[in-house]
Amino acid sequence: MRVSQLFTKTSKTAPGDEISKNAQLLIRAGFIHKEMAGVYTYLPLGKRVLDKIIQVIREEMNRVGGNEVSLTALQPKDTWEASGRWSDEVMDVWFKTRLANGAELGLAPTHEEPLTKLMKSFISSHKDLPVYPYQFQIKFRNELRSKSGLMRGREFWMKDLYSFSRSEDEHNEFYQRMSDAYDMVYRRLGIGDITYKTFASGGSFSKYSHEFQTVSDVGEDTIYIHEGRRLAINEEVYNDEVLADLNLNRDELIEKRAVEVGNIFTLGTRFSDAFDLNYTDENGDSKRVFMGSYGIGPSRLMGLLAEHFADDKGLVWPKNVAPYRVYLVSIGENGSREADRLYDELTREGIEVIYDDRDERPGRKFADAELMGIPYRLIVSDRLVESGQLEIVDRSSGEQRLLTAPEVLAILR
Amino acid sequence: MRVSQLFTKTSKTAPGDEISKNAQLLIRAGFIHKEMAGVYTYLPLGKRVLDKIIQVIREEMNRVGGNEVSLTALQPKDTWEASGRWSDEVMDVWFKTRLANGAELGLAPTHEEPLTKLMKSFISSHKDLPVYPYQFQIKFRNELRSKSGLMRGREFWMKDLYSFSRSEDEHNEFYQRMSDAYDMVYRRLGIGDITYKTFASGGSFSKYSHEFQTVSDVGEDTIYIHEGRRLAINEEVYNDEVLADLNLNRDELIEKRAVEVGNIFTLGTRFSDAFDLNYTDENGDSKRVFMGSYGIGPSRLMGLLAEHFADDKGLVWPKNVAPYRVYLVSIGENGSREADRLYDELTREGIEVIYDDRDERPGRKFADAELMGIPYRLIVSDRLVESGQLEIVDRSSGEQRLLTAPEVLAILR
Repeated sequence: MRVSQLFTKTSKTAPGDEISKNAQLLIRAGFIHKEMAGVYTYLPLGKRVLDKIIQVIREEMNRVGGNEVSLTALQPKDTWEASGRWSDEVMDVWFKTRLANGAELGLAPTHEEPLTKLMKSFISSHKDLPVYPYQFQIKFRNELRSKSGLMRGREFWMKDLYSFSRSEDEHNEFYQRMSDAYDMVYRRLGIGDITYKTFASGGSFSKYSHEFQTVSDVGEDTIYIHEGRRLAINEEVYNDEVLADLNLNRDELIEKRAVEVGNIFTLGTRFSDAFDLNYTDENGDSKRVFMGSYGIGPSRLMGLLAEHFADDKGLVWPKNVAPYRVYLVSIGENGSREADRLYDELTREGIEVIYDDRDERPGRKFADAELMGIPYRLIVSDRLVESGQLEIVDRSSGEQRLLTAPEVLAILR
Repeated sequence: MRVSQLFTKTSKTAPGDEISKNAQLLIRAGFIHKEMAGVYTYLPLGKRVLDKIIQVIREEMNRVGGNEVSLTALQPKDTWEASGRWSDEVMDVWFKTRLANGAELGLAPTHEEPLTKLMKSFISSHKDLPVYPYQFQIKFRNELRSKSGLMRGREFWMKDLYSFSRSEDEHNEFYQRMSDAYDMVYRRLGIGDITYKTFASGGSFSKYSHEFQTVSDVGEDTIYIHEGRRLAINEEVYNDEVLADLNLNRDELIEKRAVEVGNIFTLGTRFSDAFDLNYTDENGDSKRVFMGSYGIGPSRLMGLLAEHFADDKGLVWPKNVAPYRVYLVSIGENGSREADRLYDELTREGIEVIYDDRDERPGRKFADAELMGIPYRLIVSDRLVESGQLEIVDRSSGEQRLLTAPEVLAILR
């Protein structure tokens, strides 16, 4: 991508009503645009980051046997009356609307109900189980407050997977696999070391559910971490009984602010009861399907990564999700010719490169590369062309090196 | 993908309230699920087809310089009051809802307003133009009737690109490039020969807009085709004045039913007037930005392809959008061993294969392969293993051939 063809521009300021650091940075760098509180448009650079986060999650969901689907935002009332969650008192984040004929509809804040209902068409025998449909879907939640940028949206991206198993044992085995898959997602996104599997309150079918909490000063949650065992306890269940149950002592735990970046939950037969979702087992007996739900918010993760990896110059994307791998800057006439050549070569090699071909001061280009958080900045100047070298700067460490083109390619590949 | 791991099943019947052929077939084959009229969930096979259609369109949009973004469904009232389209009388397909604080919101049926408003942050000089943002987005339209399956949705996928140009001339040049890009999309989807660029009524800024109409008995539109010139006239503008203007005679034209699969429209300064979107030209004068809009509905296209390429056995996907390229069926014990080996080999080669590893009669497997419309069916039986051959059947022509494994690979690659 040539910067001259990118329609966004960086900006020194963010909207005055935007108080979250992640949204301020992402808006200033031209990654997102604020439509209203909690509702953001993804601009070209932001769309690329979001897509990469989604792709990492998709690969891990496919690895555990997930089947990707795409459910609908519009939801008929009767589906949710069956589970008792149509009422605004029970589910307090509904956006409701109406069909032209007056029938009430809701915008799905989650998808247990429609998916459980749908699975009645496909599950009847033990041979049909287990199955793991999942989706990346825009969810709508009518939050009273939405001041944390991408971290608490009213319209936001969610990966939700639902497991349908024959028994609690079969469920528990998959629940552990999903827990491992989530660990892998956070490791690949560069936050494995600061993300903790966190005990939280369960439902009627399990003592605990688990959240994945990433330590961050702007987190809305408080967790208590046992570093040695790489686990944490949510504030809700931080009490003597749970501590004893988990064999933990208060003085081993460190209190931290954290952002919930995922959760896994044993639904049991809560929804298969509501929709009468059964299967016939090997003996011909009818049994309820045993369910679980597993959520990760890609847009929240994008906000967290933006906020966590930032410095005073701007964003610092982990390499796996950066919109481009390298930001190419030319200085001078010979530099420009060599940069054109290098841009073609990098593109041919499949290296994602953004080439600042604008007629701007080098300082402005460097500042934009830093604000956008591109992992490497590659400089081609007249002087460097003469010496047969390129300057490559690591955005994260700030390290500058003079290298030959083949050496640079080896790093970028 | 192994059929045993796919949670959907084929069915002999579709829901009684589903009268459109495309939705009936897609539901029976397990590609989509009906939530309510005009609102469909994409199941794993359907999601793959939709994604492939989207990818074809994306490639052509990128080729003409499009920048992919993702705008929001939730829309604040003031954005649409600025253009006069908030009113339900002016825009009769709104779904409206409210924030928890009572503020009115709408679900975007199209995105001219928010995008024009957004571009004010990025367009100020002639150097910032032209630009072509586009998106794949779920649109919401509160249609009174929605009985055509995927062809008229209340919640549906749309590709919309908007052009921002310096002048009408610059716009016209891009408008023609988009027209060519649309032709390419339909050719790649296998409907180039039955899709006509069709003159339709324009707005205040151009005499005509253009629709792309695909001939189909279930089309909601009537068009008049000039086969030699590969163009058509929409019913709206089928009159003596337009015929004279286009140098056409009634007796050269054939009347046909057709489905609108795309449209391109000269917006002129309709929206840049409403949002005061200007740029400064080379002489320092302030000018209005000149706009165009360009839509294609990927979900409608999916419905059309399903309907158009069907036969009495089911779906017949064009190769470019089929969910898998080949449906592998084993018969007998040796056949099964060889099929396992072949499945691994095809997967390694990057050939998209769906392997029917179920314990079912071959006839049932063949019928499913046909209903799903997979381009090739590959059969490995005990008898064939002995003779060192495979049977490959072309879904479209019905042609059956006995070939060696290398010959089969050459076809599938």
